[in-house]
Amino acid sequence: MTTNTPANRKLRLGAFLPGGGQHIAAWRQPDQPADGATNLGFHIQLAKEAERGLFDAYFLADGLSVSFGGGIEGGNAKVAGFEPVTLFAALASHTKHLGFIATASTTYEEPYTLARKFASLDLITEGRAGWNVVTTTGDATAQNFNRDTQPPHAARYARAHEHVDVVKGLWDSFEDDAFVRDKDTGRFFDPAKVHAIHHKGTHFQVKGPLNVSRSPQGHPVIVQAGQSEDGRSFAATHAEVIFTAHQHLETAQEFYRDIKARARGLGRNPDHVLIMPGVSPFVGRTVEEAQEKYDRLTALILPEDGVGLLNGLTGGTLDLSGYDLDGPLPPAPPTEGMKSRQALIRAIADEHGFTIRQLYQWVASARGHLTLVGTPQSIADTLQEWFENDGADGFNILPPWLPTGLTDFVDLVIPELQRRGLFRTAYEGRTLRENLGLPFPETRWALARHSTQAAE
Amino acid sequence: MTTNTPANRKLRLGAFLPGGGQHIAAWRQPDQPADGATNLGFHIQLAKEAERGLFDAYFLADGLSVSFGGGIEGGNAKVAGFEPVTLFAALASHTKHLGFIATASTTYEEPYTLARKFASLDLITEGRAGWNVVTTTGDATAQNFNRDTQPPHAARYARAHEHVDVVKGLWDSFEDDAFVRDKDTGRFFDPAKVHAIHHKGTHFQVKGPLNVSRSPQGHPVIVQAGQSEDGRSFAATHAEVIFTAHQHLETAQEFYRDIKARARGLGRNPDHVLIMPGVSPFVGRTVEEAQEKYDRLTALILPEDGVGLLNGLTGGTLDLSGYDLDGPLPPAPPTEGMKSRQALIRAIADEHGFTIRQLYQWVASARGHLTLVGTPQSIADTLQEWFENDGADGFNILPPWLPTGLTDFVDLVIPELQRRGLFRTAYEGRTLRENLGLPFPETRWALARHSTQAAE
Repeated sequence: MTTNTPANRKLRLGAFLPGGGQHIAAWRQPDQPADGATNLGFHIQLAKEAERGLFDAYFLADGLSVSFGGGIEGGNAKVAGFEPVTLFAALASHTKHLGFIATASTTYEEPYTLARKFASLDLITEGRAGWNVVTTTGDATAQNFNRDTQPPHAARYARAHEHVDVVKGLWDSFEDDAFVRDKDTGRFFDPAKVHAIHHKGTHFQVKGPLNVSRSPQGHPVIVQAGQSEDGRSFAATHAEVIFTAHQHLETAQEFYRDIKARARGLGRNPDHVLIMPGVSPFVGRTVEEAQEKYDRLTALILPEDGVGLLNGLTGGTLDLSGYDLDGPLPPAPPTEGMKSRQALIRAIADEHGFTIRQLYQWVASARGHLTLVGTPQSIADTLQEWFENDGADGFNILPPWLPTGLTDFVDLVIPELQRRGLFRTAYEGRTLRENLGLPFPETRWALARHSTQAAE
Repeated sequence: MTTNTPANRKLRLGAFLPGGGQHIAAWRQPDQPADGATNLGFHIQLAKEAERGLFDAYFLADGLSVSFGGGIEGGNAKVAGFEPVTLFAALASHTKHLGFIATASTTYEEPYTLARKFASLDLITEGRAGWNVVTTTGDATAQNFNRDTQPPHAARYARAHEHVDVVKGLWDSFEDDAFVRDKDTGRFFDPAKVHAIHHKGTHFQVKGPLNVSRSPQGHPVIVQAGQSEDGRSFAATHAEVIFTAHQHLETAQEFYRDIKARARGLGRNPDHVLIMPGVSPFVGRTVEEAQEKYDRLTALILPEDGVGLLNGLTGGTLDLSGYDLDGPLPPAPPTEGMKSRQALIRAIADEHGFTIRQLYQWVASARGHLTLVGTPQSIADTLQEWFENDGADGFNILPPWLPTGLTDFVDLVIPELQRRGLFRTAYEGRTLRENLGLPFPETRWALARHSTQAAE
């Protein structure tokens, strides 16, 4: 497999497929199962459909508390669902090529158990696992983990940096050729190729080694989504895929160029840092048909759910009860959680002069990501424009409801992207890393030996 | 489904099937894959084979550190493998009836994440999940979780009691009829049927609710294996299946009667507390063939692995380097870990007058569990004797090597047990709980309502 260069650059596509549906009212659509969030068969169907569309990966957001009424990934249909890593382990055997990117928290999980479950998923999927690193916002989650309030934003990111370093070290515990498994001599492994990390840091003390062998990808693909200053610094340091939210090409370009420059400044190859904004597509054979799909879904939002969504998206500080839904958004102080998302939501309200009702209707489909209502051609035009003008290396597609929103994209937009030579017509590689054109990471121990040899 | 009574009592069987093999030298057998521990296809084969034998459950022990050379579940072939919950999620779709009992630690995992992954596994398996509760022994694990040494035995058990209470409370977050999912009204759930637990205890502060719905079994089956005073108290309070190690019917009876009496004293129905000793069977069509299988496997143990195994089994304090392998076991002080197992191993050495070498050869097959070398008839005789004389409600079968040790049992011993009317000829129920004859637990909220109604 070859890794990404400017010459062989290709569009990458992830699919956000929460069984409860992306849009807050998705479950009320006649063609979406109301119990999708807890329906294994439905998730299997979605995974197969995404693979039919040649998507790089199935992406699942995740939280560690119940998000009643709204929130960043909430909605009543999503108050209860599967834990993503166990779900993906169950979906693996129903697919052959599709990657599986699961979200997990550096704030509320220990590096040893987290490294272990992702390495195990990478073994089970034969190299198709990715970890979406989140620091997890909100006091509701803190209260499920022995705290009254969440740690401050900066403290969460400081812990996240150390956490990811430890996890990567644990994934290197066994070198790729550590296992000898010689039945004649009884020698199972080479002790010189097995390593404890003896980590003693600010947040963690972890000796190692991990009790899972090196997985097919070496390291599951590291994904991240923060857009604040801390988030950008983290992304440039660690992330190989970056999920981001932009309403306009200009802000997407600013983000894209900033992250690539930061990565280059840190000695990383910017072609191995893929920036993938979220897109919520309403696809019609005509613009009218697409608009009709948008209107039909938007009409299904209950006002209390819309208000709950805005409250969740702005960090839980926005109590809109008592405000006129057809009046403007009241001011609110910034909080420790989701700083960038708060600013984005307010910018949307300001730009369009939205009332509270208009705002929740707008953000309900994509929570601040780009909403495209149009034909396969017009949607492909936008994706192509962003892809060819430093706005994106690919996109995370957030079908507003399921399975139809995904099927529309697979049947109508994917062929248009293929006709334009932007998207694959068959999977190129064996692993998620290979399909994304990302390099296989050597263990730190092999790297150290190579640099010693080079210096001699 | 009917639950267990003395009148309908039936033998239950679990299968310990670590891909690396139970016996420390199992991987060196010609018919066991050397890479079994990290081979998904081999685990699928084992699960199907266990289901062919109508076993109640596939049982996996687990630890959170690398156990070099030996230890309670160690052996070089098991230094690295899958995380059991992700593995079982992957095996679920390859089976229809087999239960999956995964081990997880109350000392090093948080109740919220633990409750969540087991509820998720129970959804994925459609009601076939069990949790083997362990407190996890050894400083090596503590050193992977920000500590230098493990917490004391009593402290681990105190935390375990509270941990299981919190987990059960979280599993009751959504009552069985909490979800309305009415597309017409937009009402997804009934808020009166969703509950936070607001737990504030000595070790944990957990608000809830859990973000997974009630799973098909209500609660995954609770399994436990401690035999110390703390362990027995814990088992009588919480466990529905108890894994235990005995060499003789007399000690098994003492344990059996003690646990049943304790459970009764705590207001539990002792028929809903199943006691299942471990048995390592070497099955031959003749006694000679069985003995030949035992001798062949025992001969494959490397001396350093045997010594490492004894060290691990006695809590890591037994450094035998420098001692004559053909001399007696030196004395050692008791430690905080695995108290009952240390005593058991020493009792075996004393009873048989074993040298170090003879001792490790003996315990290598079953680590202190009952080793039966014989014909299907003689093995069934022992199982029947224990089952009919207050020694066991069933057994956890630990095939010494795989898949042959399992296949031998399925092809030779299961039919003999069936002929005697001791074992099922088809699965009775839909869930693990139903197959084990254990009752479906109502949520604490429904129970509280029922007791209020009864008092009125």
